Amino acid sequence: MAGLVKFKQHPTKTLKAGGSFNLADVDPDSTPGFTGNKADGKALLADLDSKLAELQEKLFAESRFGGTKRILLILQAMDTAGKGGIVKHVMAAMDPQGVQFKAFKAPTEEEKSYDFLWRIEKEVPAAGMVGVFDRSHYEDVLIHRVHGWAAPEELKRRYGAINEFEARLTGSGTKIVKVMLNISKDEQKARLLARLDEPAKNWKYSRGDLTERAFWDDYMAAYQAVFDNTNTDEAPWHVVPANKKWFARIAVQQLVLGALTDLKLEWPKADFDVGVERELVARS
Amino acid sequence: MAGLVKFKQHPTKTLKAGGSFNLADVDPDSTPGFTGNKADGKALLADLDSKLAELQEKLFAESRFGGTKRILLILQAMDTAGKGGIVKHVMAAMDPQGVQFKAFKAPTEEEKSYDFLWRIEKEVPAAGMVGVFDRSHYEDVLIHRVHGWAAPEELKRRYGAINEFEARLTGSGTKIVKVMLNISKDEQKARLLARLDEPAKNWKYSRGDLTERAFWDDYMAAYQAVFDNTNTDEAPWHVVPANKKWFARIAVQQLVLGALTDLKLEWPKADFDVGVERELVARS
Repeated sequence: MAGLVKFKQHPTKTLKAGGSFNLADVDPDSTPGFTGNKADGKALLADLDSKLAELQEKLFAESRFGGTKRILLILQAMDTAGKGGIVKHVMAAMDPQGVQFKAFKAPTEEEKSYDFLWRIEKEVPAAGMVGVFDRSHYEDVLIHRVHGWAAPEELKRRYGAINEFEARLTGSGTKIVKVMLNISKDEQKARLLARLDEPAKNWKYSRGDLTERAFWDDYMAAYQAVFDNTNTDEAPWHVVPANKKWFARIAVQQLVLGALTDLKLEWPKADFDVGVERELVARS
Repeated sequence: MAGLVKFKQHPTKTLKAGGSFNLADVDPDSTPGFTGNKADGKALLADLDSKLAELQEKLFAESRFGGTKRILLILQAMDTAGKGGIVKHVMAAMDPQGVQFKAFKAPTEEEKSYDFLWRIEKEVPAAGMVGVFDRSHYEDVLIHRVHGWAAPEELKRRYGAINEFEARLTGSGTKIVKVMLNISKDEQKARLLARLDEPAKNWKYSRGDLTERAFWDDYMAAYQAVFDNTNTDEAPWHVVPANKKWFARIAVQQLVLGALTDLKLEWPKADFDVGVERELVARS
């Protein structure tokens, strides 16, 4: 354990998709701000598990005494980019009781009959919780843009509605962390082939992944439009190079730790007289 | 790792609350079927984490191909007995995406306006999921019996309704694991005092715990009545000695592993031609 390698620059800064950000400039193989290798990354991830768990417990504890703070991690990515791995290897350090996980699939007929934010609103995290969205309302400006299911003026309306929706969440105590896991097209090919080559992974393969893969460049343009239109001060986007799974995991861990730290959490002070209660328990 | 201590008799057998089971005969300090100490217990728990995770993934995978199997772990106990610790230290080994956790609090006014199983039905695990109930419909025959909120004939009706409800779940693919964590009254006192003595634990203390503690013997009688009336072949009760937290955790881990093993899970066979898909991906 001698020599735990830490980030030189924090991912909240280096991975921000702000200003004149251009997705095409990001190298999915890179490890911005981190000079260590895979083993260093794994050691850092494990080292910070308990910190993450402690902050999450504080968040939960505050809510029991009227606190309204909460976290919402939004994960977006091309197929196989590792959203599931983030949930399994980063978020799993937290107490499952304090994590509200939701995977958004293709909308049902009922969901389609409402505005696109209707099904999202129902899944926003409760006070004290860490919410995790595996896909989200951003699908409505990604796949919908790629396949032309929404016209340009409707997309524009949706960007605005998303910004208002997220501002409302932020205003009621939610710290939003938006992450796009950025893999290269070649890396996706390798991962799809791995799913076919390992029988225990076959179930993860779907022909649909291949269909969407054919629209790779359109997806990249749609993501760029998302960053251009929905990167706000309250809810900024972070683009995480994800060809190296271990890097994506430590980067997202840092982003979530950063968000929890920003909330300035404290253990709730007892709203009862500890001495009196102690005496009552002792006598019981 | 030389010499991992394993269970000599499986908890599915030794901890079963069947036949002429008498709660008063159980020693909450005991470690039935396990001859190791705390360190041995912790080593066993860690060793089986990956087995638990693999079986859970198989369960989830099956459901993607039409499988309807699922698990429901029901946790009941007096306050401080360690339900939360089970979730945090046993169930956390599984992928959060495959775990459906629900803590049942005192019912809301709306929930009270329906039959007691109404709010429970909405939280039963989806196909492929591992459901975890922290408290459950059993509160309606425990605290309700203790405080006389339900008359004897109503309690009788509820036992029957519970058995029918659980048989229906079992019939539609749910393997139910019912666990009562059994601590002693003295151990509860020590744990309540610990919550008062550590400022970071103060938030977990509630005067309400003390109120219910005064009814200890009535609760034990209510649990005995639960075992007498709802211990069925499909959904048997297990009473886990829980004064030693490490033992309770390895025992529940064994019960969940046993349930998953009983389901005879297999990786789904590909419903597509792997060679054809491989070729398509390679060319993409």
